[in-house]
Amino acid sequence: MKRTGNSIDYYGIYESEMGKIENKLNRLLIKKEPRSLYEPCSYFLSNGGKRIRPYLVLLSAKAVGGKLSDVYNAAIAVEIVHNFTLVHDDIMDNSDKRRGMPTLHKKYDISTAILAGDSMIALAYESLAKDCKKNIGNIFSIFTHGIIEVCEGQSLDKEYEIRNNVSINEYIKMIYKKTAALIEMSCRIGAEISEAPADQLRAVANFGRNLGIAFQIQDDLLDITGKEDSFGKTIGSDLIEGKKTFLFLRAMEKTTGKEKQALMQVIENKGIERIEIPRFEKIYYDFGIIEDAEREIVKYTKLALRNLNSLPDKCGRDLMRRLANILIHRNK
Amino acid sequence: MKRTGNSIDYYGIYESEMGKIENKLNRLLIKKEPRSLYEPCSYFLSNGGKRIRPYLVLLSAKAVGGKLSDVYNAAIAVEIVHNFTLVHDDIMDNSDKRRGMPTLHKKYDISTAILAGDSMIALAYESLAKDCKKNIGNIFSIFTHGIIEVCEGQSLDKEYEIRNNVSINEYIKMIYKKTAALIEMSCRIGAEISEAPADQLRAVANFGRNLGIAFQIQDDLLDITGKEDSFGKTIGSDLIEGKKTFLFLRAMEKTTGKEKQALMQVIENKGIERIEIPRFEKIYYDFGIIEDAEREIVKYTKLALRNLNSLPDKCGRDLMRRLANILIHRNK
Repeated sequence: MKRTGNSIDYYGIYESEMGKIENKLNRLLIKKEPRSLYEPCSYFLSNGGKRIRPYLVLLSAKAVGGKLSDVYNAAIAVEIVHNFTLVHDDIMDNSDKRRGMPTLHKKYDISTAILAGDSMIALAYESLAKDCKKNIGNIFSIFTHGIIEVCEGQSLDKEYEIRNNVSINEYIKMIYKKTAALIEMSCRIGAEISEAPADQLRAVANFGRNLGIAFQIQDDLLDITGKEDSFGKTIGSDLIEGKKTFLFLRAMEKTTGKEKQALMQVIENKGIERIEIPRFEKIYYDFGIIEDAEREIVKYTKLALRNLNSLPDKCGRDLMRRLANILIHRNK
Repeated sequence: MKRTGNSIDYYGIYESEMGKIENKLNRLLIKKEPRSLYEPCSYFLSNGGKRIRPYLVLLSAKAVGGKLSDVYNAAIAVEIVHNFTLVHDDIMDNSDKRRGMPTLHKKYDISTAILAGDSMIALAYESLAKDCKKNIGNIFSIFTHGIIEVCEGQSLDKEYEIRNNVSINEYIKMIYKKTAALIEMSCRIGAEISEAPADQLRAVANFGRNLGIAFQIQDDLLDITGKEDSFGKTIGSDLIEGKKTFLFLRAMEKTTGKEKQALMQVIENKGIERIEIPRFEKIYYDFGIIEDAEREIVKYTKLALRNLNSLPDKCGRDLMRRLANILIHRNK
């Protein structure tokens, strides 16, 4: 990351703003009682994560000419909502680890995790309210809509686990709701609190929505092309779990004969053994599935980026562009 | 229920208003997709219940001089929140039945029930928003505070299940949060939307809080003195589950010798067998625990009722008084 005397120190902005967000998150529940409820919440909220969503609240406030200091609590709010979804999804997926640490229901128990997730939703509204001075109705409605979309997306995701004929269109609609809607919401919240005009609100929403879809397809792709890391991420784990990812569904469309048979077997057996991963990796490479995914990621990222031109603040715009580029080039 | 030509037809008001609420609840999710999410929500929301909380939203709006038609959506909102807590509590308590029907996680599965509960929170905010014209910040903050209290109350309840030295004061604090806070919130929401002045807001809040505590102690009492009914309610089920109810904790305070030993055994064994119920019923009667509970219910009901005098609308006041009397004299 280059820093020069003349140009804006983008990385410095990111570091200092994200430091504030981390601090606020860590302090949020420190003295709240009962500890049986808030200690588990703190455990999860302090457990890292990319913090993309709160960063986007800040960036879109900045990009529309708003003040960062007006949206810190809103940024915290979207991060809490995101964490609520993770806590509950981990129960539903019976996941043991998250960010290299035990999931909340594994560290405590399922009841504690359900309740921690529930209270996070309310804590998120409480945090959001602190940054609501004008347009309160709009802000709450955007926020609520985002949570509803996430629930619908998770429901579709669970539904698709047991359905055998999921189309790529349905898949895109599902990841829009499950992943992109909250990223879109983060952008809208930042801009709405900053009282951006309608065209700028639309622009940041479109940016967030398309970035979110690109982000999720990238996530699917990294399951094959990513680096195994110390956080316990295993290449091919989506295949092991029989997940109907973009790659898998695209492969279902493009293959015939024995490859198609093999893929249908994955659905039937609800996953594969670790030893079989290379075989499916080869299918993905041989049939151009990897390139298809890459092309799709580029397509949605471009759709995101073209919304930035209409935003008034150069620094905000540049930071949003940088974030999109970082996400597209990440390897975990 | 008497109805005369001269007096207000209280029962008629109740019936017609509650009919509207039921209708709205039944229609709310009828066409919403995905059905995998909303069908389970509808199943639960349409499954009866006393509808006390939405009724209180209407009554407190009326009592402060507001219009019923201004708070229907808010009434729906509190009922949805109440139902969210039931859906998630049923998972935590591993309950099979609710209102004589399979609980949501038994009819579907735990994932569906978690997600249905989650989305109910957001649906509740969505419904509430429809009735927010002024004081939006206050209304949302009262609502959010209510949800946080309920989560804290449930957490304390779970905590007390495994703690052996729960005092009656702690118990009252717990049921305030777990039960009374949402009833208080229902009253506050109705009055806040109706733009009641501060003293009336305080009055309906105090009414709701004390009524809620009386309601919960009555619930504890009915576990011993209530009627077994066709909904599968069994006398003594709190004892079977080893719940630390008002009666149980009061008995712990008042008994010595072999009765105290028996109660401590209930804690140690986390409950009793059905055959042992009469023995504990006898302790409750012999040591005046039943009268103590009745006295406590009367005390909190009186504390509730004395707030009504300051409210301007006679019909609203009378309906609130009637509701309190019905609740105190219910047998299930």
